[in-house]
Order: sequence, then structure tokens, then C-alpha cells
Amino acid sequence: MTVTSARGFRASGVSAGIKESGGPDLALVVNQGPSQAAAGVFTSNRVQAAPVRWSRQALADGRLSAVVLNSGGANACTGPTGEGDARLMAQRAARAVGAGPDEVAVCSTGLIGVPLPMDRVVAGIDAAAEALSPDGGEAAAVAIKTTDSVRKTAVVSRSGWTVGGMAKGAGMLAPGLATMLVVLTTDADASAPLLDSALRAAVATTFDRVDSDGCMSTNDTVLLLASGASGVVPQAAEFTEAVHAVCLDLAGQLVSDAEGASKEIEVAVVGAASEADAVTVGRSVARNNLLKCALHGEDPNWGRVLSAIGTTDAVFDPDRLDVAINGVWVCRNGAAAEPREEADLSTRRITVTVDLRSGDASAVIWTNDLTAEYVHENSAYSS
Amino acid sequence: MTVTSARGFRASGVSAGIKESGGPDLALVVNQGPSQAAAGVFTSNRVQAAPVRWSRQALADGRLSAVVLNSGGANACTGPTGEGDARLMAQRAARAVGAGPDEVAVCSTGLIGVPLPMDRVVAGIDAAAEALSPDGGEAAAVAIKTTDSVRKTAVVSRSGWTVGGMAKGAGMLAPGLATMLVVLTTDADASAPLLDSALRAAVATTFDRVDSDGCMSTNDTVLLLASGASGVVPQAAEFTEAVHAVCLDLAGQLVSDAEGASKEIEVAVVGAASEADAVTVGRSVARNNLLKCALHGEDPNWGRVLSAIGTTDAVFDPDRLDVAINGVWVCRNGAAAEPREEADLSTRRITVTVDLRSGDASAVIWTNDLTAEYVHENSAYSS
Repeated sequence: MTVTSARGFRASGVSAGIKESGGPDLALVVNQGPSQAAAGVFTSNRVQAAPVRWSRQALADGRLSAVVLNSGGANACTGPTGEGDARLMAQRAARAVGAGPDEVAVCSTGLIGVPLPMDRVVAGIDAAAEALSPDGGEAAAVAIKTTDSVRKTAVVSRSGWTVGGMAKGAGMLAPGLATMLVVLTTDADASAPLLDSALRAAVATTFDRVDSDGCMSTNDTVLLLASGASGVVPQAAEFTEAVHAVCLDLAGQLVSDAEGASKEIEVAVVGAASEADAVTVGRSVARNNLLKCALHGEDPNWGRVLSAIGTTDAVFDPDRLDVAINGVWVCRNGAAAEPREEADLSTRRITVTVDLRSGDASAVIWTNDLTAEYVHENSAYSS
Repeated sequence: MTVTSARGFRASGVSAGIKESGGPDLALVVNQGPSQAAAGVFTSNRVQAAPVRWSRQALADGRLSAVVLNSGGANACTGPTGEGDARLMAQRAARAVGAGPDEVAVCSTGLIGVPLPMDRVVAGIDAAAEALSPDGGEAAAVAIKTTDSVRKTAVVSRSGWTVGGMAKGAGMLAPGLATMLVVLTTDADASAPLLDSALRAAVATTFDRVDSDGCMSTNDTVLLLASGASGVVPQAAEFTEAVHAVCLDLAGQLVSDAEGASKEIEVAVVGAASEADAVTVGRSVARNNLLKCALHGEDPNWGRVLSAIGTTDAVFDPDRLDVAINGVWVCRNGAAAEPREEADLSTRRITVTVDLRSGDASAVIWTNDLTAEYVHENSAYSS
């Protein structure tokens, strides 16, 4: 189970006919309380989908009773019509579950720039409300899939309480812009401020460090709802760790399922003067198309790593850079070192380690290789 | 003719055996004066190849007598050995043409991280010096090719003087990091400060706005040598315009010949609050892999344009963004406008116009589509 692993939640997933395929495309998650505390993190893209704008203000008071989600359409770049549609989705879901519209968050994913078929969405919300069940977490996780090949769920239990969740997103790679949507639930009796701090800390070092193709979505949303149904007030550090564990698990599932990818690449930057430097360098390497092609071809092309590092303003000396690929230090002091043939890149998981030799800070960025399949899946060929 | 179109220059291109193919791979350009004024612009990558470091200091006094160039190896990330090799190339060329080593610039292109076969390079320099000719410009342009499918040359003549040049580079896309090398010559009697200001102005709006795959080379070099052999001191504005014209011509040839590309894409940003904003937005669009895939598939996916713009800090209102693709305004006010079917993307050249509606500044960035061929050419599959 997923969003219904924690006590106090019901969920459902139904086929509303939004997707042309006729597959499941509408999900509902309802918090039965007694608490309605909630927190959320949204895309930092300045072009934000209508549901993101709606959910942001719905969360302003730190409370949510329900989340309605749809696949098959992102409701992004849809103008005033889209704003009205997001509001209508919240209103309809609120009425169906007996809450106020401002207590309902809305998440949408799919093609952008196309209005939702609201007649189907509205009927689907009613059907989803009918189907709500304490065992509905799996159905909800399936209904939010777009190009995901598998549903993504995770759960951990700690001192009398549980944190569970579901995610969708094929590593930010999808026809028409993938959207990363995540709903986490817990039966811990956590306050909105604790939910917020735990979620922000977890997202900063998990979802925010997945950089599959450098493209930022208009719809990314991560929500955390607490029912308090366990009756246990969690210890802050333990709760924060648990939320991080679930987010890390789900983030790994996103990278594993990235569209068209044949490799999961971990860029580990160590020896940085600051964590910000480590993240900057990791991102520059993770976004380098030439390196992503080379790793796809199992070529330990460390020169492309150095050329990527060189584009940043991080603290380092170009003549003191070390790079290891799958544990083989192919570059030391900015030049060739151990024989590149010793780096075995036939594994699906590849680690690129960069030692900036400028301090003690570190960071990891997760990405994928660049493949012909990525091109095919993201060009009109596939539609 | 190219670098030998202007009077006072000799050039040559020979096969030195640096390339495994046995093709031409070593070029020499010699300025016979009477002037030796010169200027140069180099990569802003902090990881710089040995020849870039050498040429930068050789140019410190605003004078150059010759340029020695090789393909088949970038001499980048080669440590102290590479530094010595670059110096040796300059010394050998200087001796062969009767100049001082500090008057000789060095340019290398090819795989990085691999030392040059210096015995062959040295013999090749001697052979190139023997082959120097007032008609050698074409041979030189051929010898600096790597994955370029055609040689790239351009020339303009103005009031009694000429500016000509040659370039190599497949749009910054190549196995092992493409390198953009450009040598321009003129017989105008232009001072080093005028050469420098004209070259910087020209590069800023031509080569610096080519962003084929977002990857910055360790070896990029653009040199401008003046012989003064025309005896004419050029008018500054006319000279600056002529240098710009040659650079623009060569930059267009780079984009046209980008590896694996099937489309040449012009991202024109208008209505920006500043030119810096226009460049930032143009680059964000030009580097968006999802959009580059869509345009490859001839899909006018304007949502991906908006999502790219949204990642920048440029001045704009997300609800007032307009986007045209090949002249069809598919997006107005941040939402769908004219039917996307009306945009015909079957052309090789595609224009994406972004109107930020926030001012009067504008800029153009040139890029290419992302194709399966790009992936193949840049993964080990091709080697």
C-alpha cells in the first residue's frame, strides 16, 4: 500500500476518459483526520500550471483534506480557462468528500497547452469519490501514471507511525513535458510547521537532485498530509529522517524509470568548498549531453567531465581535478591517470566521482544517459 | 581562397599522420607583414587546453607572425606534457618561418586527454613550412577539419582591403569534444586595439550565440591577424562591420554542418527588457532537450518553449508571453492561440520567436535539433 499505508487515509483511482487510451487517469486521496495538517513543495519554474497555483494557495493555511489528481493533461499554459478548471476540480472533489474547496489540492500531469475535458473530469471525480477505500492506494498510484512503466510507491514505519507515498514521473522525461507528482501521507500527529521543515529538507537532497534531462516541469508538486490517526506526536529528527527515506526511495524509482534511458548515473562531487559548489558542479556534469552520450556508449570519456566542470564558477584548480568513473581514477590533476580501459561501464548503474580538492563539502546528483530512444520518445515520431 | 585572400599571407595544409585516417591534419598560416598586429578570443571554459594557454600569452603583446594548427588531437587535459608540447609546436613553427616562438599561436582540435604524437607533429610542421603558398588557404582549411563534412571559409572586400578566414567545428558537437577554431586574416593596416575591439564585437554576436548542444569546448580559439599589406588604414566602423560579416558567415556554416542535426533552429527573442535578458532566454530555449526533440519531430511544441523561459530570471510576465514558430503565433498571453497545425516545420530552417513584451531589446541564438544521429555520433558506437 502507499498513500493508504498510514491510518486515516482513503484513496481511489478510476478511468475518467481523459486519456485517449482509456486507462486509469483520475485519483483521489482523502485525509479523514483527526488532523488535517499538510505541507507542499512546488516547481520553481516561473511558468506554473493552474493546479500548482491553486494548490499553493490552498496550502497557505497549512491544512488539506484531500488531493485530486489527474493524468492525461497538465492543465498548464491554459490561461484563465485553466485557472477555472483547476478551481472546479477542487470544488467538485470538496463537495464529494464533504470538505471546503480551499482544503483540496489539485495535481495534473500530461500534455501542456491543452484544456482538460472537464465533463469527463467532473464525472471522474464523482466516480473516484464513490470508489474511495482504505485499500485504494495502489489504484491511485496507477491512475497518476503517464509514460511511467511502473507505479512508484514507498513506505516506512517508525515509532508507532508510518510515512507512505506515491510518485509519478519518468525522470522528468516525457512527451509533452513529464510532471513529477508526489503525494505522501502519514498518521503521525505532526504539526504543519514540522511537516513543512521535514518535507523541504527531504526534497532538497532527493527530488531536487534528480536531473534526468535538465528540463524543469511546470507542474512539479510534492505534498505531505498528516492525519494524526496514530495518536503519536513524532520526534522531529526521527520524523524528518523517515520523510527523507521515503523521498529518497521514490526519487530512485524516478531515475530507474526514466524514459529511453539505459543507464542510471550518479554524479558524486566531493572535496567541494561548499555544498552549493558541489551541487553546481554535479548539475553541470549531469546536464552535459556529450558526456551522457559517451556513458550511453560505455565510453569513460572523462575529458567531457572536465569540460563540464570548467563551465562553472565553483572553487577549484583545473590542474588539481580528479575524476573516477565506476571507481577507476581515470583523471588525476586534470590529466589522464589510470587506464580508461579499466573502467567497466557495462553496468546499468554508473558512478562518476569528481574530487574538487577544495574543501569538505559534497553532493550527489542523479541523472540518466542520452539515448536514441529518448529522442524518439520525445519527438513527434512517438505520437 | 580564405586566410590567403588578404595580401601578405601564406598558408599550407599537410598530412602529418596525427589522424589515424591519414588525412590532412596540420596547417600553417604565416603573416609576411609589414604589420604583425593581431587579436584573439578564447574559450571561457576554466579548463583550457595547453595551446589555448600558450596562444593567450603569445598574444599578450598584440602581435603574431604565424599560427600553427593541428586536427587529430586537442592537447587538452594533458598536464605538464601538453604544456611542453604546445610550446614545442610554437618553437618548431617559429624556427621554420624565421620568427620568435612568442610570435606563434597554436591551435589544436580532436580528442582530449590524449598527448599528441610529437614526432609526427614536428615533422609535419617542417613539411607545412615547405608547402607554404599564397594560394594555400584552401589546403589549410581542409587540414583543420575533424568531423566537419565541409571546409568552412569566408571572405569580404571593402575599401581597398579584404578580410577572409577559415573555421572548423561541427557546431560544438563531435566525438571527444568538438573544437571551434577560427583564423581570420586581413591586409588592412589595422592596429592591435582596433583588431581586438572589432573581433570582440563580432564574436559576441556571432560565434558566442551559436549554442548547438550547450557544451563548451576547452579549445575554442578565434584569431585575427593583420598584415597591413594593402597599405590602407581602415575606417574603424567599416572594418568592424567587415569582421562581423565574415564571422556571421562562418558561424552560419558551423550551425549548418552540426553533427547529426537535421534542423537549423534560430531562437529570436524580442521585447526583452535588456539584451542580457534576451540572450539568457534564447539560451534557455536553445538548450532545452525536450524542445530540440520536438522540433526534430516537426512538432510545434510551444509548451516546451514556455517551460524553458520559466527557468530564467529574465523580466517577463508568464501570462503575457507570446511564441511564434515559423511565423505562426501558436501561443499568446501564455496560452494556445493560432492552431499549431498551421506551423509548417518541414523546412530545414526553423525560427522560434519569443516576445517577452517587457522592453525593446532582442537577441538571436542559433542551435540545432536533437537527433538519434547526434547520440550515435557522440557515443562510443561510432568509434
